[in-house]
Amino acid sequence: MKPSHIEHIGIAVANLENAISLYEDVLGLKCYNIEEVTDQKVRTAFFMVGQTKIELLESTDPEGPIAKFIQKKGEGIHHIAFSVEKIEEKLMHAAKMGIKLIDSKPRKGAEGLDIAFLHPKSTSGVLIELCENKTHSTG
Amino acid sequence: MKPSHIEHIGIAVANLENAISLYEDVLGLKCYNIEEVTDQKVRTAFFMVGQTKIELLESTDPEGPIAKFIQKKGEGIHHIAFSVEKIEEKLMHAAKMGIKLIDSKPRKGAEGLDIAFLHPKSTSGVLIELCENKTHSTG
Repeated sequence: MKPSHIEHIGIAVANLENAISLYEDVLGLKCYNIEEVTDQKVRTAFFMVGQTKIELLESTDPEGPIAKFIQKKGEGIHHIAFSVEKIEEKLMHAAKMGIKLIDSKPRKGAEGLDIAFLHPKSTSGVLIELCENKTHSTG
Repeated sequence: MKPSHIEHIGIAVANLENAISLYEDVLGLKCYNIEEVTDQKVRTAFFMVGQTKIELLESTDPEGPIAKFIQKKGEGIHHIAFSVEKIEEKLMHAAKMGIKLIDSKPRKGAEGLDIAFLHPKSTSGVLIELCENKTHSTG
């Protein structure tokens, strides 16, 4: 089963308020939530565009993953998240295909989703997140 | 009017066939078209995920924009394209808001869309494309 849609795109920004203003005032989107995710050391702002969320990510700690990303690559797109079913099977399949996993098992992410990342070294430089909304599952 | 959805995500890859294999064999997507866009000096492979296309971009020229992107930043996500209506008005509005434009007027892109890029220096490091399918317009 292929991913149903792109659940979100994560974008690393230096200043959340400036970036929110860009997406609201220039593109006409509406920020519907701002949330601090302490274990990821980020503040996140969410926008909906069709099926997909834009998640702006501002680091709350100079040693956090988003701060390090910006130091290395500059502000910009940080990851893409694909909405999948049976995330555990997808991870096992990816591992079998030789993909390096950041998370060998799903963990809880924002909004209660089960999430796991594939390593960008195995995926043409793209940090790919798989995520599953198990509250919608029928199984 | 806000963008209706994310039309596509462009990803710069070093080797198109290797990257196609990743998206097909690991993620289970299906490449439905491969196209050479000579004026952009790229070969492109297309996949559909819900409302959004993934466009893998391989440079056909070491001096092309995708080759230069990879030299500077490595392989990875290159741009996001938002589907909009009245693209000329959107560009004028962005310019009025102080956004630097790469294309001050729309030009023809892949699949006959009218497209224009905003400069990443104005948009928190994200290369943003606006695109409009005027063949679907009612005006």
